[in-house]
Amino acid sequence: MIRAALLFFALTSFVSAQTNPAALAARHWRETHEKAIFDEFVELLSIPNVSSDRVNIRKNAETIRRAMEKRGVAAQLVEMAGANPVVYGELKTPKATRTIVLYAHYDGQPLDAKEWATPPFSPTLRGRMIEKDGQVIPWAAAQYPLDPEARLYARSASDDKAPILAMMTALDAIRAAGLQLHSNVRFVFEGEEEAGSVNLEKILAAHKELFSGDLWLICDGPVPQNRQQLIAFGARGVTTVNITVYGPRRELHSGHYGNWAPNPAMMLARLLTSMKDDNGRVLVEHFYDGVAPLSETEKRAIAEAPAPDADLMKELWLGSTETSPKKLMELLQQPSLNIRGMASSRIGEQASNVVPSTAMASIDMRLVKGMDHEKTVARLIEHIRKQGYFVVDAEPAGEVRMAHPKVAMVTTKGFGYNAVRTSMDLAISKEVIRVVESARGPAVKVPTMGGSVPLDGIERALGTQTITVPIANHDNGQHSFNENIRIRNLWDGIELMAALITM
Amino acid sequence: MIRAALLFFALTSFVSAQTNPAALAARHWRETHEKAIFDEFVELLSIPNVSSDRVNIRKNAETIRRAMEKRGVAAQLVEMAGANPVVYGELKTPKATRTIVLYAHYDGQPLDAKEWATPPFSPTLRGRMIEKDGQVIPWAAAQYPLDPEARLYARSASDDKAPILAMMTALDAIRAAGLQLHSNVRFVFEGEEEAGSVNLEKILAAHKELFSGDLWLICDGPVPQNRQQLIAFGARGVTTVNITVYGPRRELHSGHYGNWAPNPAMMLARLLTSMKDDNGRVLVEHFYDGVAPLSETEKRAIAEAPAPDADLMKELWLGSTETSPKKLMELLQQPSLNIRGMASSRIGEQASNVVPSTAMASIDMRLVKGMDHEKTVARLIEHIRKQGYFVVDAEPAGEVRMAHPKVAMVTTKGFGYNAVRTSMDLAISKEVIRVVESARGPAVKVPTMGGSVPLDGIERALGTQTITVPIANHDNGQHSFNENIRIRNLWDGIELMAALITM
Repeated sequence: MIRAALLFFALTSFVSAQTNPAALAARHWRETHEKAIFDEFVELLSIPNVSSDRVNIRKNAETIRRAMEKRGVAAQLVEMAGANPVVYGELKTPKATRTIVLYAHYDGQPLDAKEWATPPFSPTLRGRMIEKDGQVIPWAAAQYPLDPEARLYARSASDDKAPILAMMTALDAIRAAGLQLHSNVRFVFEGEEEAGSVNLEKILAAHKELFSGDLWLICDGPVPQNRQQLIAFGARGVTTVNITVYGPRRELHSGHYGNWAPNPAMMLARLLTSMKDDNGRVLVEHFYDGVAPLSETEKRAIAEAPAPDADLMKELWLGSTETSPKKLMELLQQPSLNIRGMASSRIGEQASNVVPSTAMASIDMRLVKGMDHEKTVARLIEHIRKQGYFVVDAEPAGEVRMAHPKVAMVTTKGFGYNAVRTSMDLAISKEVIRVVESARGPAVKVPTMGGSVPLDGIERALGTQTITVPIANHDNGQHSFNENIRIRNLWDGIELMAALITM
Repeated sequence: MIRAALLFFALTSFVSAQTNPAALAARHWRETHEKAIFDEFVELLSIPNVSSDRVNIRKNAETIRRAMEKRGVAAQLVEMAGANPVVYGELKTPKATRTIVLYAHYDGQPLDAKEWATPPFSPTLRGRMIEKDGQVIPWAAAQYPLDPEARLYARSASDDKAPILAMMTALDAIRAAGLQLHSNVRFVFEGEEEAGSVNLEKILAAHKELFSGDLWLICDGPVPQNRQQLIAFGARGVTTVNITVYGPRRELHSGHYGNWAPNPAMMLARLLTSMKDDNGRVLVEHFYDGVAPLSETEKRAIAEAPAPDADLMKELWLGSTETSPKKLMELLQQPSLNIRGMASSRIGEQASNVVPSTAMASIDMRLVKGMDHEKTVARLIEHIRKQGYFVVDAEPAGEVRMAHPKVAMVTTKGFGYNAVRTSMDLAISKEVIRVVESARGPAVKVPTMGGSVPLDGIERALGTQTITVPIANHDNGQHSFNENIRIRNLWDGIELMAALITM
């Protein structure tokens, strides 16, 4: 079977010189089982998975546990009071001298279903992206093999159930092909990543015997815009902050009070403007303090990484970028301050002639190696104070609002984690590069990827290393509405997982 | 009857030296008919009256027409294609040499019912304001006479159905007391004021024989914070603008794109900040050009007007005002630029880690005598251009967004009208002051009130003068949620209307 498959691929797979036997076996398996693979994926994506939805979160966890057991993986739910279960599985390999841990998360970003073209938990196949007028393909009309450019729309189709499905399918393929494992392989599927992984570190530390390994492979995030495989040796940290500023106690008629009552929307605009200069540089004092410099290998990797910037600007209808002319990959090695949402009273048809009572902005800050998330929030708060605000951390009473010309409530919910960066010069780093490239061809190697995964807690709890190997398409709408995965990325992901499981 | 009432009031009405016989008759009538008056008001407020709701708008108009007919007023709906009907009524007075027109509007501001403590079209009585923990008084438990500090909550309870109810009740009282009118009296109730009175001028111009008069008395707006009667000889004009700025075509993951993709919320914050300085002065070039100076009488009136600023700051929980230390009344004689709403993506619990795709602000600008609303919008657009924006007036295509570093869509919907200001030195102005003060005691007289009413169109169409005599309490929540009227203001309004109808 495998030999035949190898021959077949040698003839057809001309894009990359694919030599990894497990990856080849995975391709053959997938080509002969597309419908079954897809059915299992659709079933998994149909279970709502917002972190706070405890009932459905448990359904997800149980489904994944059963999926592992079906493949002969010793699986269990690792529980901690108040936390969503971590789904854990292990494949012991006799005489193995190495333990590889594969990580993904089964929870998804909160959402507003009204914003979605189709319901987020009713997985929907489209011929192409919505933005390219991709039409819905009813399930009854789906043709296998699927068009690799088709898209599957659902919350977590990319982020981050795709790697889970890919690993399960890879296990089927490995077993069908009779391939041997070389390492002990552990699977860890978290249920609170989009809620900030607030419990992960504690759970890991409490069960080191289960979770430790020579390497954690983080299967999360998208590949670059040119669709090459990515190996990321680190990820930015993140912290979020909500800022509310106050005008009059209640909304006021903008005619009878406008020009006299302070307008909180204007105050907020002014405050946000003070945080960044026109060229995208954060103006919060000490914001960039402690940022760790890049090594020579890291600098070279960034220089060699593709620059999809021009294509991406076209795709995204951008006439400029924030820190022009620096390229995307270079900028992702820097910290950021981003307004993720802003609101005051009502807009457009709903707007009325009022002076709003409050204005709120939600901000996220991405951190790089050397920065501390709590210190960064403290610096932002200090910046807000310097703009003349009295800063509180809970809804201010009337007396407080009257006692100060400007009052801001700043809340963080304790959410945040730091960046990590594994050296590209380690032996295990070089081994991962070799295996990945044997399955997927030349890979883009970056010191830090832009997105955040709670790697600092993992490294701290277990004293291990992490390397990230994403599979999702970059244009997957993750963290927003209409999240999707490109079918080809899912198929490629199965091959990648097969190679990593057998490394 | 009247004589007895006069005696009674002479003994009890010690606050103001009330001498106007019609006002006294109105008080007596009200005191003996509170429940019937209130029932009619509740019925009127129960009919939804958002301008765009054509079916209910007509129900309002028919109800008001019938209310006038019941009082012997020759009433009709004046129609124009595409416009909400103007409800018109006339009381002809033999040998009268003067025609007084009383204006109010029966439509209300758009609303979001979710923001209201009780449904906006289910009028609800409360013992006090909501902000003072006023509890709902079920209708079955309402006690007459009503506590004058009680509040009635409903859309348009103040703005602007209260004057309509007050006029109808005043007519009942005048008739019951057998008082004579001295002028021809006309009633004009508009149905599109909150939608910008876009058709009023045309309707008036088409029916000059119905609508002309020596004076239009505009019954709209609130009285000052000290609850004294107000006579306003003008009102600010207004125009509204929606501004949308653009980031990436779709929301992007703030980790993978943050720091590179332009953030429209930050762009909007910067743009709004550029429009005003820290002290509330509008920075749009030529914004203040042409503003007409105040006469000596007008300056004196402002100097004599009460300054409720300190009390108001306490009531509104304000620790500062926008153009400190200038007082409210003084500032309302100036134009304003106000952010009435602002939005980009989602905030708080709904926020996700994205770079938003768009950000929008709704702005209103209040204009004073000498400014033109179209010119003012043009100046604002020019200001936006000067901030580096390519300005469009409709949703820009991808090509447009790609061709310019910054693109803003600015729309106005043609909404806007200019300020007016009637000289306080005219004979008719002095006569209005005399009549109002005979009914309500010393009045606050202001050249321009802060709110806007479409007086310029009236003056242009009919060549008449306008003077505004509001009755609503200042803390009525008009244009926002939980609009209400203080019962005492309604009662005072009935007395005022009786005096004006018989002037």
